Amino acid sequence: MEFSSKFLENAVSEMSQLPGIGKRTALRLVLHLLRQPESQTLNLAQALQTMRTQIKFCKSCHNISDVDLCEICSNPHRNQELICVVEDVKDVMAIENTSSFKGLYHVLGGKISPMDGIGPHDLNVTSLVEKVKEGKVKELIFALSSTMEGDTTNFYIFKQIQEYAIVTSTIARGISVGDELEYADEITLGRSIINRIPFEASLKS
Amino acid sequence: MEFSSKFLENAVSEMSQLPGIGKRTALRLVLHLLRQPESQTLNLAQALQTMRTQIKFCKSCHNISDVDLCEICSNPHRNQELICVVEDVKDVMAIENTSSFKGLYHVLGGKISPMDGIGPHDLNVTSLVEKVKEGKVKELIFALSSTMEGDTTNFYIFKQIQEYAIVTSTIARGISVGDELEYADEITLGRSIINRIPFEASLKS
Repeated sequence: MEFSSKFLENAVSEMSQLPGIGKRTALRLVLHLLRQPESQTLNLAQALQTMRTQIKFCKSCHNISDVDLCEICSNPHRNQELICVVEDVKDVMAIENTSSFKGLYHVLGGKISPMDGIGPHDLNVTSLVEKVKEGKVKELIFALSSTMEGDTTNFYIFKQIQEYAIVTSTIARGISVGDELEYADEITLGRSIINRIPFEASLKS
Repeated sequence: MEFSSKFLENAVSEMSQLPGIGKRTALRLVLHLLRQPESQTLNLAQALQTMRTQIKFCKSCHNISDVDLCEICSNPHRNQELICVVEDVKDVMAIENTSSFKGLYHVLGGKISPMDGIGPHDLNVTSLVEKVKEGKVKELIFALSSTMEGDTTNFYIFKQIQEYAIVTSTIARGISVGDELEYADEITLGRSIINRIPFEASLKS
């Protein structure tokens, strides 16, 4: 692509380093910004800069936070003995949106994935094991993706904390609410039969 | 969406104002930036800021340029009497990539579109008519999209310059190179028959 301006070329090239944004999309976005009031671009640039330099991570759960201890960890109304282990910040937001969990979180920052060169030491596992060791945790809920990497990570953490007397659980795998049975894959369907729940319990949720 | 950080929320909200980028995609992009080295975000912010504040538009053709008169307009090897009228900067780049046009451009900055509230006075039409009036132009090539808005814009400009003795043409509409005939729409196919070209001429291009 031939650019008539170095400034334009530079902006497009930086923009196209974002995942899923190619050169053409980047050009479209940058040209859009050029048609909008100058303030929009300046606000965007400022917001990104502030976000990247000012943002903190909660020292306890590693969630994104503006303060040292995030709002969830410092909330006395939440169950401090129940910890939900998630992959990243998006998962905390997704679970918070359901309003059905009142414990704390622990953000690993990824999954064990040898193919991508991510081992246990690249994740926030040590601090989780420390929490368990200190005896303040009664139950760990594994809420990772149901993939090979998610299962490996669950198992790795399980092995580390096995010796301590805590309950470990994993979120239920089953048919999504609203899904047609005939389109469900066989593994999910099989598991949903093995892990069936009493009908009366299902009425409550 | 509940955010655990104001900085994050702000960045996501600014990012999601870009066309085609919703809240979820914006969050994905911003979280990606957080995982990358700080320099990437700072470079992006800087590039956008510089682009928006420093960029100029060529005073003759209204193309994006770092100088007052763009490289194309100031190139003595280009045919100054042949002007290709395009909608925006992307079209200049697309035509330049073909290497088959050696004249100048005129960037309108949009198409007449009453539905979007864009009239002739929002476009760079006056400066184009001025160029024609000054008698320096021999041919205008309309290279706008083949849509209702594009055709309207072509016709509006044509009416403005009709009285001057210049040639006006429009880029050929026909079957795309590599296209199967059976999938072509009937209007395009019909036009391609009416505007057929001598076979020998087709061998040259």
